[in-house]
Amino acid sequence: MTWLDLADDAPFDAWTLPYGVFSTTGEEPRVGVAVGSWVLDLAPLAAVEGLDGSHLFAQRTLNSFLAAGRRAWEAVRGWVLELVTESPHRDLVEPHLVPLAEATLHQPFTVADYVDFYASQLHAENVGRIFRPDSPALPAAWRHLPIGYHGRAGTVVVSGTPIARPSGLRRVGAPGSDVEFGPSLKLDIEAEAGFVVGTPSKLGSRVPLGSFEDHVFGMVLVNDWSARDIQAFEYVPLGPFLGKSFATSVSPWVVPLAALEPARVTPPTRSPAVAAYLRDGDPWGLDLQFEVSWNETVVARPPSRELYWTPAQMLAHMTVNGASVRTGDLYASGTVSGARPDTGSFLELTWNGSDPVTLADGTRRTFLEDGDTVTIRATAPGPNGTRQRLGEVTGTITPPP
Amino acid sequence: MTWLDLADDAPFDAWTLPYGVFSTTGEEPRVGVAVGSWVLDLAPLAAVEGLDGSHLFAQRTLNSFLAAGRRAWEAVRGWVLELVTESPHRDLVEPHLVPLAEATLHQPFTVADYVDFYASQLHAENVGRIFRPDSPALPAAWRHLPIGYHGRAGTVVVSGTPIARPSGLRRVGAPGSDVEFGPSLKLDIEAEAGFVVGTPSKLGSRVPLGSFEDHVFGMVLVNDWSARDIQAFEYVPLGPFLGKSFATSVSPWVVPLAALEPARVTPPTRSPAVAAYLRDGDPWGLDLQFEVSWNETVVARPPSRELYWTPAQMLAHMTVNGASVRTGDLYASGTVSGARPDTGSFLELTWNGSDPVTLADGTRRTFLEDGDTVTIRATAPGPNGTRQRLGEVTGTITPPP
Repeated sequence: MTWLDLADDAPFDAWTLPYGVFSTTGEEPRVGVAVGSWVLDLAPLAAVEGLDGSHLFAQRTLNSFLAAGRRAWEAVRGWVLELVTESPHRDLVEPHLVPLAEATLHQPFTVADYVDFYASQLHAENVGRIFRPDSPALPAAWRHLPIGYHGRAGTVVVSGTPIARPSGLRRVGAPGSDVEFGPSLKLDIEAEAGFVVGTPSKLGSRVPLGSFEDHVFGMVLVNDWSARDIQAFEYVPLGPFLGKSFATSVSPWVVPLAALEPARVTPPTRSPAVAAYLRDGDPWGLDLQFEVSWNETVVARPPSRELYWTPAQMLAHMTVNGASVRTGDLYASGTVSGARPDTGSFLELTWNGSDPVTLADGTRRTFLEDGDTVTIRATAPGPNGTRQRLGEVTGTITPPP
Repeated sequence: MTWLDLADDAPFDAWTLPYGVFSTTGEEPRVGVAVGSWVLDLAPLAAVEGLDGSHLFAQRTLNSFLAAGRRAWEAVRGWVLELVTESPHRDLVEPHLVPLAEATLHQPFTVADYVDFYASQLHAENVGRIFRPDSPALPAAWRHLPIGYHGRAGTVVVSGTPIARPSGLRRVGAPGSDVEFGPSLKLDIEAEAGFVVGTPSKLGSRVPLGSFEDHVFGMVLVNDWSARDIQAFEYVPLGPFLGKSFATSVSPWVVPLAALEPARVTPPTRSPAVAAYLRDGDPWGLDLQFEVSWNETVVARPPSRELYWTPAQMLAHMTVNGASVRTGDLYASGTVSGARPDTGSFLELTWNGSDPVTLADGTRRTFLEDGDTVTIRATAPGPNGTRQRLGEVTGTITPPP
């Protein structure tokens, strides 16, 4: 399928072709596409080929390319697919392949607004049981609409950025006990799929389900780091704030929606029936298989196929009140959890710390300790029965500053 | 005090000197300072005077000037104060005074992240009683920290922008009743003070109380439009989302902190004692007097002097977990409410619609109807016993699209 010599364990195949921003020693960050163990340096290649849009790639972020719209995304993907699959292009392409090992990866896009949803029923039920044991596990509105909230766009960071342990106020013990200030004792992860908006919408208009692919460019892997003790103390009635706002990590590679077509699955049946703006004749979710590594030990393999709400429903909901979206908007699924132990958070995996997990080196963990590294990877069905790798998002906890 | 001939009812005096972005027919938007009934066109004036920073004013937003930092803000304010108070400058200045009536006012800055707090005790108690009658009026954490959440930065609009009535899901009646989709039946306002960040902070560091003035440039008036029925249905457990995200209006004029020095007041005593990062030896709030007009009838005069949390505490809290702030960040006080009827929301004024208000034309209102206009103004103590006007934020409701 490709003339490139791809190792079996190469980070990417020649189908996924995700976009990112990279630099090499002494050169400016610019847009690239990952293929195998290389980055394809798009700007000079597009210039050599005389492409109209070559200026879109000589940029420090993907935002200009994102804003170029669906036709441009399709045209560029078609061009890159041809370059890497048809051997006569080899002489043209090879000089513009940079080994991933020599590339520094940057934050791929400037985040406009960041929204986080709560689309996994198992996750919502687990969190409900842990945080609100006296209430129904699922919030009353949960099956009627994709519950979501705004996160902090300015603290979205690229994979590899160290995560300083946040401090804040929290209860020492049960509700009603003393309040104290200090570094979080319940630092956690959330493994999520994030969707990146390219084409903006107008204030006062909606993005119906059928227009999803006109607006959304692709997907990143997200780790929405969460300080559960800070969150538990602060979140009533306006939602999570400092418990989440210190950092959210995203993968450096944005997988275009087109690469995920073989990963489409029918979402669970919704009951009760949802409102018309959320009702789609041909709904699809994504069959992603996450893999969460805690200091090299794989502790969970959360599947996304059971997410109750689809990416198109999240976007339709987010804009049904007339709110506009902008180029660079990021919205994420919320924690992806299957049955324990395949949960996307350690809150669930260790049941709020009551059921520790043992890592390969024999150490036991409830929440994150300083020096711990978490890496979230994902794979998905590719074309012709293959399985594609979707990259990774990683971060290491550093002591409080 | 000034050589300008200022009418008693002029929008501004010669002290407040707020910054905004304006344009005149056929010319590009640029930075100006409002004085009396004029806009001082800063860019050509700075060029004539040979000022270093004249490029900061030939911009479509204030962001470059905001990023220039506290010394630049002080220097420019000192220069403008001198221009408008010392009569020898008259010949220089007069050609650069544009009548406000001839100026189109634009959104003054590009919003990075938008955070909304909940700093008024009377407001929080009222909302608690209305939305959560079976729980304590104040949330458990309320006296320990300034509760806040992230709003949607991309739908912050300048005063005068029409506000389309949002649609969403809501209960027809009491909890447990049917859920229906439609235009909000409880469209409301929130009168707030908003603070604009100029100088960014670093990820992983805090902005202590004493550094407030190094980071915050000034204040805008905010109307955080709210659809109470949509909000009530969706907000558990992650906070308000579509009930707020359709639009937030800001005044076109940003009042520099320096102009508000005469308006500083001692905030209420905090009990219980707050954590060290929120404890300030010399705390100050702002003695703003809001005035809320509903179709020309003044229905409330909410005072801000009783806000429990100060602007410096809000910033210290927002960053205590290591979250960074960026140039253009906007954070608002939350609804400013005094005792009824001087509340900053109609939810409180009409007690969730049960106690209608009668306007000057004899019509009665509970929540906003299509065609209604709300204008929020504010004044504050100025120098030497004067009272300064701080501008206005206005908006008219249009039918659902």
